[in-house]
Amino acid sequence: MSDKQPTLLGRSGGRRFLKPFARQQEQRPPIWLMRQAGRYLPEYREVRTRAGSFLDLCYSPELAVEVTLQPIRRYGFDAAIVFSDILVVPDALGQAVSFVEGEGPRLDPVSSAADLARLDPLRVPARLAPVYETVRRCREALPAEVALIGFCGAPWTVATYMAGGRGTPDQAAARLWAYRDPNGFDRLVELVTSASIDYLTGQVAAGADALQIFDSWAGSLPDSEFDRWVVAPTRRIVGALKARHPDVPVIGFPRGAGEKTARYARETGVDGVGCDTSLSLGTMKALAGTEGVVAQGNLDPLLLVAGGAALETRVRQILAAMQGLPFVFNLGHGIVPQTPPEHVARLVDLVRGQG
Amino acid sequence: MSDKQPTLLGRSGGRRFLKPFARQQEQRPPIWLMRQAGRYLPEYREVRTRAGSFLDLCYSPELAVEVTLQPIRRYGFDAAIVFSDILVVPDALGQAVSFVEGEGPRLDPVSSAADLARLDPLRVPARLAPVYETVRRCREALPAEVALIGFCGAPWTVATYMAGGRGTPDQAAARLWAYRDPNGFDRLVELVTSASIDYLTGQVAAGADALQIFDSWAGSLPDSEFDRWVVAPTRRIVGALKARHPDVPVIGFPRGAGEKTARYARETGVDGVGCDTSLSLGTMKALAGTEGVVAQGNLDPLLLVAGGAALETRVRQILAAMQGLPFVFNLGHGIVPQTPPEHVARLVDLVRGQG
Repeated sequence: MSDKQPTLLGRSGGRRFLKPFARQQEQRPPIWLMRQAGRYLPEYREVRTRAGSFLDLCYSPELAVEVTLQPIRRYGFDAAIVFSDILVVPDALGQAVSFVEGEGPRLDPVSSAADLARLDPLRVPARLAPVYETVRRCREALPAEVALIGFCGAPWTVATYMAGGRGTPDQAAARLWAYRDPNGFDRLVELVTSASIDYLTGQVAAGADALQIFDSWAGSLPDSEFDRWVVAPTRRIVGALKARHPDVPVIGFPRGAGEKTARYARETGVDGVGCDTSLSLGTMKALAGTEGVVAQGNLDPLLLVAGGAALETRVRQILAAMQGLPFVFNLGHGIVPQTPPEHVARLVDLVRGQG
Repeated sequence: MSDKQPTLLGRSGGRRFLKPFARQQEQRPPIWLMRQAGRYLPEYREVRTRAGSFLDLCYSPELAVEVTLQPIRRYGFDAAIVFSDILVVPDALGQAVSFVEGEGPRLDPVSSAADLARLDPLRVPARLAPVYETVRRCREALPAEVALIGFCGAPWTVATYMAGGRGTPDQAAARLWAYRDPNGFDRLVELVTSASIDYLTGQVAAGADALQIFDSWAGSLPDSEFDRWVVAPTRRIVGALKARHPDVPVIGFPRGAGEKTARYARETGVDGVGCDTSLSLGTMKALAGTEGVVAQGNLDPLLLVAGGAALETRVRQILAAMQGLPFVFNLGHGIVPQTPPEHVARLVDLVRGQG
């Protein structure tokens, strides 16, 4: 992208979301919410009925653009996140992926070198082309002041689904594979890492202003495994992205990393760290202050369901704690479907000082 | 217990498990394993077929003693933990509790003041008498050098099951109740806290040498909620126990507490902290060194499934990191059913320096 400046604001001028990354924090932090395009919105549910499968929705630029923009129209968030799923990468590699309504994803598990040999990185660009088209159309359709975030799943988290065939409480299949055959498991992680670099690069080329790497299952690993399967692949992705697009901020979200979060911030090279609900405000302050990354988080999504005085009190606590530090307001995990849309409006008002 | 000395070794002489608590750490740490009495053992599965329901097993002193002792006979662990379940407390309070094979516990959820009014603390002593009988018989049957651990679930974790009716990934029912009606939820937590104090006291009176408080769902809470629902009730339990039995060590296990674990150690008054798998060895060292508690943990239970070189390497890492510090070797979570019993034998040899 030769037309961009080597600064985090080069490409996208005054988009509020990007300012903390350029250390131009304003008094009120930017806000967007994980899963802001989703089932809690009636307009999303309407579009969902028009798509066939969930993956059809992810691969239909027309519908995916529509659901990406819905929360921007309704709430005026500072960033949109392209509507997609972390499992488009295994799908694009050739693993069978489907979504069972109410139960989550199902994959034909991979567990051997022979399984890996059937995956084909050369399929990825064509299969993911509709996502790039969605990014392109979103960027065109979005107001200039709203940033567009591209994303992928972190290799560890994607590999847990690829090995386990579904979401599981303990990610046992991937963890056991990694213990029993670290070199074989490393080939899986490398495959996903390379595909993820291409995927994120494609999203930036199509117009994404920033990137997020979702590592939802980072919390299940002992420190030695965390370094190998969470930190190292993330560092490789961030390094590759920075070499090509030094001006595009990358946010890592190592959910459940707890006291290993600061190490993750230091060693991966991410510009921002998504903080889950369980991280204390003191830790979030230390990340943004001492560790020099943008902290993003971390309101409990269930407080957005509860609403009322409890929501208000906690939002004010978070804002006060992060005052003056590089910070993006977000949830600590995705919006849950039973969230009343009016509570989201209330939250945006509170964060913008209109509450 | 007027015959006991006001020292952590007063009652139980030279039991190896208790030495770290008296700062008499030996070169090789004591070892026991969470869920050491369980389905991975063929002799457990045999006894299980003789009991009716899972709760019948918990309330049958004859069978519960047998399964408590099985892993001691097989492996010579330094501590036995009385065979019971954290949900005997809601059961004893009068809530309907059952266990569905392969699916876990089911309870008639409580969600209101009216539901709480139907629970009756006066039922607790009689209903839990069989557990005390199990403790008494275990202590009699155990070799003098093996310690006996009594336990309960922490009020927060028990309340998540009481409110949710089952184990859930996000403990939404309890968390929403706590947000919407903190005073009502506090009555539930208080009820469980008081019953837990009685329950632990009863176990000590029956012969338990040490106690563990399992807070399996401590990790789901933001810091403010963590302080209120995890730290405060645990502090109340520890305080009550210490007032009656200053010589009985209390271990807290706040699973998933991450960077809040040190605060938990400082503010609850526990003597030891169970460390889950995700806590780094650096943090475990800091707990045992700087925070002045006995650290207990934290081998990944899946490494015990995998076995081999990966198991050996990690065990040696943990032992080296904790050398000279007050430390009890354990897993970071319970043994899983598919664990090969011979891997457990190998682990014990490694920890004892016979590997």
